[in-house]
Amino acid sequence: MASTPDCYRIKREVNKMAAKKFGFKRNVAIVGVGQTRFDRHFTRSSPDLLAEALLVALDDCNNIEPKDIDEHVLGYCGLGSLYIANVAGYFGDYLGLMPKPMSRTENACATSSYALRLTIALVASGMADIGVASGVEKMYEVGTSQILYEMSRGGDTEFESYYGVTFAGHYAFLASRHFHEYGSSKKHLCKIAMKNHANAVYNPMAQFQRAITEDQYYGALPVAMPMQMLDCCPLTDGAGAIIVVPAEDAKKYTDTPVYVLASAAATASLCTFRRHETAGIEAATFASDMAYAQVGMKREDAHHTKKVIDVVEVHDCFTIAELSAYGDLGLAKKGEEHLWVERDGPMVGGDIPVNPDGGLKAKGHPVSTTGVSQARTLVRQLRGEDDPHVQVPGAEVGLQHNVGGSGTAVAVHMYGRDLDSVQKKLKK
Amino acid sequence: MASTPDCYRIKREVNKMAAKKFGFKRNVAIVGVGQTRFDRHFTRSSPDLLAEALLVALDDCNNIEPKDIDEHVLGYCGLGSLYIANVAGYFGDYLGLMPKPMSRTENACATSSYALRLTIALVASGMADIGVASGVEKMYEVGTSQILYEMSRGGDTEFESYYGVTFAGHYAFLASRHFHEYGSSKKHLCKIAMKNHANAVYNPMAQFQRAITEDQYYGALPVAMPMQMLDCCPLTDGAGAIIVVPAEDAKKYTDTPVYVLASAAATASLCTFRRHETAGIEAATFASDMAYAQVGMKREDAHHTKKVIDVVEVHDCFTIAELSAYGDLGLAKKGEEHLWVERDGPMVGGDIPVNPDGGLKAKGHPVSTTGVSQARTLVRQLRGEDDPHVQVPGAEVGLQHNVGGSGTAVAVHMYGRDLDSVQKKLKK
Repeated sequence: MASTPDCYRIKREVNKMAAKKFGFKRNVAIVGVGQTRFDRHFTRSSPDLLAEALLVALDDCNNIEPKDIDEHVLGYCGLGSLYIANVAGYFGDYLGLMPKPMSRTENACATSSYALRLTIALVASGMADIGVASGVEKMYEVGTSQILYEMSRGGDTEFESYYGVTFAGHYAFLASRHFHEYGSSKKHLCKIAMKNHANAVYNPMAQFQRAITEDQYYGALPVAMPMQMLDCCPLTDGAGAIIVVPAEDAKKYTDTPVYVLASAAATASLCTFRRHETAGIEAATFASDMAYAQVGMKREDAHHTKKVIDVVEVHDCFTIAELSAYGDLGLAKKGEEHLWVERDGPMVGGDIPVNPDGGLKAKGHPVSTTGVSQARTLVRQLRGEDDPHVQVPGAEVGLQHNVGGSGTAVAVHMYGRDLDSVQKKLKK
Repeated sequence: MASTPDCYRIKREVNKMAAKKFGFKRNVAIVGVGQTRFDRHFTRSSPDLLAEALLVALDDCNNIEPKDIDEHVLGYCGLGSLYIANVAGYFGDYLGLMPKPMSRTENACATSSYALRLTIALVASGMADIGVASGVEKMYEVGTSQILYEMSRGGDTEFESYYGVTFAGHYAFLASRHFHEYGSSKKHLCKIAMKNHANAVYNPMAQFQRAITEDQYYGALPVAMPMQMLDCCPLTDGAGAIIVVPAEDAKKYTDTPVYVLASAAATASLCTFRRHETAGIEAATFASDMAYAQVGMKREDAHHTKKVIDVVEVHDCFTIAELSAYGDLGLAKKGEEHLWVERDGPMVGGDIPVNPDGGLKAKGHPVSTTGVSQARTLVRQLRGEDDPHVQVPGAEVGLQHNVGGSGTAVAVHMYGRDLDSVQKKLKK
């Protein structure tokens, strides 16, 4: 990170946030998860997709019906769809959730991680006993050029998008810088793309449930070099939902609750040129520092050699985003992410499997749904119920990383099979 | 309310929500409030307006600087402005709030009450020690016809807006029905409009800081009869911000904290024709029932004869909305709202002064800012620092009512000079 006065100011504030060690006044657990298949859903509306995800999540736990929901926070950008105000009312009406409160949040591609964060807050605060965080997006309703234009507004519109920088462009800058500073290369990105596609084979909810070859990877169309087609996540339609309850009630609803250990988020400048880190996503470093402090970990404890974190979902909107995340989150040392890839660290069966569900790359990325879908995968991993080919045996601690825009807003969540899962692992 | 099976179902669920008596795991207080003048701000951007409101709110309390903010929830519809995704990042960047988390919520005209509600949740849950709820809207940047079209999306777009029902139309239906069922009339609406304009004379932040005459009222242009121009709130530009902290820390930041006693919200169908109450806003009844339960009040205790509530802010987007709110909130009996008006009940100096700041009618209604602006007025009233002409002497309990869309989402908040203000009043 460059050494500007502002850089020191921000680092100091991250340290202060971490020192506060925010904890929940009442712990919360996830007792139900659901999502639709990620796909092109030309014949179904957004509320219809959301209804399916919600019903699957409710079926995933016991004794909760739609009428039992106290509070619902919907994540919805409205990209490519009819944008309407009063979105929560529109969806709540279709789902038949009246008279319960429903609100809508938006934070670019990190939208539903923020919906989850706010739902956690509502339950942890005592304002709700059963909360739902959801996300839905339909991106295929309009043409690709319009959706790319709309998405570019998630970056800086005045100085960057306006001059033609698309998201692939932003991440191409990141890749070029990482290659230059640390000696990583396309071969590492290829391995990440192939890993995620290989994992998606075992995810029936994935948009591309198929492996890719090295030849396909290197032969794919250029998008914004060094980003080629198979470095990029697709456009996707899909919905997801997560049921959150107080930890002390969790066993009423499921035999296998998964506990929320940490919920942190951080921001960086909307303009990439005003950030201090050019070979990483600095807000991910900030957010993970805050999350680790919440569970009593040091940043070093996240390193793959420490065996504290068992399974990770990262926001691989582009392959380079996943490579960078390894370092931003401290799973590998910054600048050594690609060396970890060479040692098969993030593979299923490796040190810490990353994106066992195929990630955004192969599972798909309906922007407002990705956060809750990542949470769903980690919950299923910690329950030990994922497909045996990608299940991390005995996984106890999961880490989730969801990025908004070109790295402006990052949410980091940690989940455990028990409330003290991290402490148990730290003592080992 | 009509007697359909669904109507009974909804009423039963409201009763169940009320029976839960949700309380905060940690109580919270408001220690700083700020807003810009409500006006046409042609030469200022939305982030600039928000910055002013935030700085005023920070100046309103001691020992809090921008860098001390742990969490910021922005209310923003983006009507009439460039709609961008990643809105929170856009504003957070301008305000220099990095690396702190910032999210954005939207719930039509109740947007910033939901931002406030979510901020309260973040502080009450232990996830933040200093939270900011804010709202900002610029509605004059585009033509009136476009803004009216955009706003109509806050209602039902498939069966209502599409066929030409504007918001003035929705409230014209409500007025016609109330006139028909209960014998209210334009003379009561005239009195409400004149009251709010008279109050706004003492509010230097109001868009129309001037009184109106009966002749002006009856001579105003028809909009959607019986709604004429002076029954309708204006389009407005403006921003507001509220600082929320744990109750136990409040005295560190101000000598006059105001405590959040209740935060409730409810929804009704987006389509007015699918609702059960045609002469009122049923979601306001639901939300107020839940709020009253949180503070240990019965609905009857809200009646103006009981003297529990001292001062009220209601969502008078149209004069009939205010008249209806008196009954929906239980300040007067449903169907007798206009009789209370005849007895000067909601006037300054009356039983329970309503909208001492001029209300949406005269103060203005920048949609995403109204909720935090209402909260600001009540905080200033409970501190006893409003203009002497409109200050309610010794006010201890305030009630806030903010409506989204045509009545789809309603948030009701209660504030007290002490945490037990309501209990003290109930014992009297």
